[in-house]
Amino acid sequence: MAATVSPSRDYSSLLSLRGNNQGVSRTGDPRASANLISLIYGYPDAGSMPTTAVAEATTRVMETQGEWALQYGRTLGVLPMVDALIEKLARDNDITATRDEVMITAGGSQALALLLDLLVDRGDTIILEEPTWMGFIWMLKNVGGKAVSVPLDEQGMKLDILESKLKSLKAEGITPKFIYVIPNFQNPSGVSMPLDRRQRLIELANEYGTLIVEDDAYHDLRYSGETLPTIYSLDTTGSTFYTATLSKIMGAGMRIGWLVGPADLMAKLSVLKVDGSTNVFGSFVAAEWMRDNLAGHIEELKQVYASRRDAMLDALEANMPEGVSWTKPDGGFFVWVTVPEHLDLTALQPFAKERGVEYLAGSTCYVEGGKNTLRLSFSFATEDQIREGVRTLADIIAGELKESSL
Amino acid sequence: MAATVSPSRDYSSLLSLRGNNQGVSRTGDPRASANLISLIYGYPDAGSMPTTAVAEATTRVMETQGEWALQYGRTLGVLPMVDALIEKLARDNDITATRDEVMITAGGSQALALLLDLLVDRGDTIILEEPTWMGFIWMLKNVGGKAVSVPLDEQGMKLDILESKLKSLKAEGITPKFIYVIPNFQNPSGVSMPLDRRQRLIELANEYGTLIVEDDAYHDLRYSGETLPTIYSLDTTGSTFYTATLSKIMGAGMRIGWLVGPADLMAKLSVLKVDGSTNVFGSFVAAEWMRDNLAGHIEELKQVYASRRDAMLDALEANMPEGVSWTKPDGGFFVWVTVPEHLDLTALQPFAKERGVEYLAGSTCYVEGGKNTLRLSFSFATEDQIREGVRTLADIIAGELKESSL
Repeated sequence: MAATVSPSRDYSSLLSLRGNNQGVSRTGDPRASANLISLIYGYPDAGSMPTTAVAEATTRVMETQGEWALQYGRTLGVLPMVDALIEKLARDNDITATRDEVMITAGGSQALALLLDLLVDRGDTIILEEPTWMGFIWMLKNVGGKAVSVPLDEQGMKLDILESKLKSLKAEGITPKFIYVIPNFQNPSGVSMPLDRRQRLIELANEYGTLIVEDDAYHDLRYSGETLPTIYSLDTTGSTFYTATLSKIMGAGMRIGWLVGPADLMAKLSVLKVDGSTNVFGSFVAAEWMRDNLAGHIEELKQVYASRRDAMLDALEANMPEGVSWTKPDGGFFVWVTVPEHLDLTALQPFAKERGVEYLAGSTCYVEGGKNTLRLSFSFATEDQIREGVRTLADIIAGELKESSL
Repeated sequence: MAATVSPSRDYSSLLSLRGNNQGVSRTGDPRASANLISLIYGYPDAGSMPTTAVAEATTRVMETQGEWALQYGRTLGVLPMVDALIEKLARDNDITATRDEVMITAGGSQALALLLDLLVDRGDTIILEEPTWMGFIWMLKNVGGKAVSVPLDEQGMKLDILESKLKSLKAEGITPKFIYVIPNFQNPSGVSMPLDRRQRLIELANEYGTLIVEDDAYHDLRYSGETLPTIYSLDTTGSTFYTATLSKIMGAGMRIGWLVGPADLMAKLSVLKVDGSTNVFGSFVAAEWMRDNLAGHIEELKQVYASRRDAMLDALEANMPEGVSWTKPDGGFFVWVTVPEHLDLTALQPFAKERGVEYLAGSTCYVEGGKNTLRLSFSFATEDQIREGVRTLADIIAGELKESSL
């Protein structure tokens, strides 16, 4: 018996406040970018995927622990994965954590979504960097949170402005639920927060009774400069949640991320995590793969991405017209480009796509504004594509600048 | 640099309404049941896990599509998995669906959680079967939904009572957001809803302007009786969502489920599904495995579970004292046992555990009440264990009945 096609019934009266949102529908598929020079998303390099090692790890897991790898698992994460993570956190991220302070999530994004569920009611205030990761802005819209933006400079969030905003909020009787910050190679700007700002941020969070959510998705991909301690490791007050992911250092398709935080809040989060243990099968495979492969794979990735970053920075230097500036990231996936204020890079996006190049309009990463900015990713395109793509963009921007000066 | 142990800061003032819930923390780990006769949860049989075939499927996927299987993917699900699902739905479940009417989720549970986000604000009314799957009761508590329970008989939800409850709600100006129903081998009761009730349920949903959420996790595991059409396939009005899962027919550790529904609501759900494409790696592997293995594997599972069901029903018949009754399921994982009203099976649970047997207190599956009921699962324990476990339970219940009659 075949179902007939559903008639278009009007469901609007049945939707919740979340369901009636005006958020962005993301059916995004990396394969749609296959015929373009794609500088738009933080997709990891396709050629560096550890396919053979993952197949081998899966075979070993199925032989030795298959009965548990295909079974339901512990809500906070299956223990082989949790233990592999605890080892990685201690080695790479200066973080000592117990099994009860760690939760395995569907990418870093589920960790953030769960934190919003735990902490934010409609109308509650969250502080974020401006610009910030667009995915977080979308999530915040879904739950009806109110964003207060703090601008960045070359050293991350401007803490004098943060302080004055915290002060005015306090005068209104508002305690922000948390400060969302990406301290390393920030997405989208590429800038990093130095040690003294990290320390000061912790002081401010405590002074004003709020929490810090540290999104450290790019931590292990540093190509220059010295590694800085995580905010989580610096914070002795229990005010920081830490989240990161295997997406950039193993494979985004694993959909494995994590959250580290106070054990009592992790227990509360496990009540809200109603989808069961995240990706039990993938977690067993990842844990097996990590033991022998993660450290070496990160070193390989750093070679690939450092060259691509250099290719992008060189191409920007060689091609961009006067009046255009950009950041010089020590790691991560992104360079942030700023053009004179009267140019609208959101409006130019379709034009660039026609000429075969995709970039992310910077306005996507702002709650409001940012039309004269764009984010370029050097993670997915080859060095040749990066050079050609940047040349095309420079050409488009130069043309627009010329036209606007006539 | 090692983090010091977080001091116990008081976070309560920062929690949201969801975060301040009184829900049940689930750190449940099947491995904790390893030394018991475990009749408590719907864990699939460990010995039937398709470990070798999954390893082989992974190797093939990594060789031919590894670069996409480890990459980000389409929010509604990667196309190989979506297409494999569409084929399965048409073959096994009488459901014709397009790519836009299907969403891959982290088990059936994420599908239900997303529907609650889409439809339910705090205080909104949902109609459910009594008893019903406890996971759904927990989810509903998280979002602050109000449950209206409709009792079951041997043919599922009692529709005369449903109708009178819909009528009284309407008189109060309340439209329930949806009716949650598990029509095949219901969890926990094991009963199934015949065709005429399925049709009448659709009529009632339309008459009162509400939706149906059909949870069909056990559909393919029928051991006797004739297959019945899904409510989704019977409903020509676009009022039904359909959810099911690979958990019982491939492996719960895959964490792959699905939701089928109207395309316009799927688009709205994709805004709320902020954790990205579910389990891209596992989806590619599952799609590859399903093509050659799913139909045959289901047949094998039916043999295993049918024998276990028979072993359990025989053991109940042979051992339970007078005054105890139980259901005779045509499929699924569960038998529902009712004892005289004055016995409290919730209170007896720890006592049974001491004697080496775990069962689920029926009260877990009620919003309120149900203390004289319990759910027995025949999916995880061996036939010998089932016989021994039921004997032990019968002994405990007989002892209690004797004591209470003194």
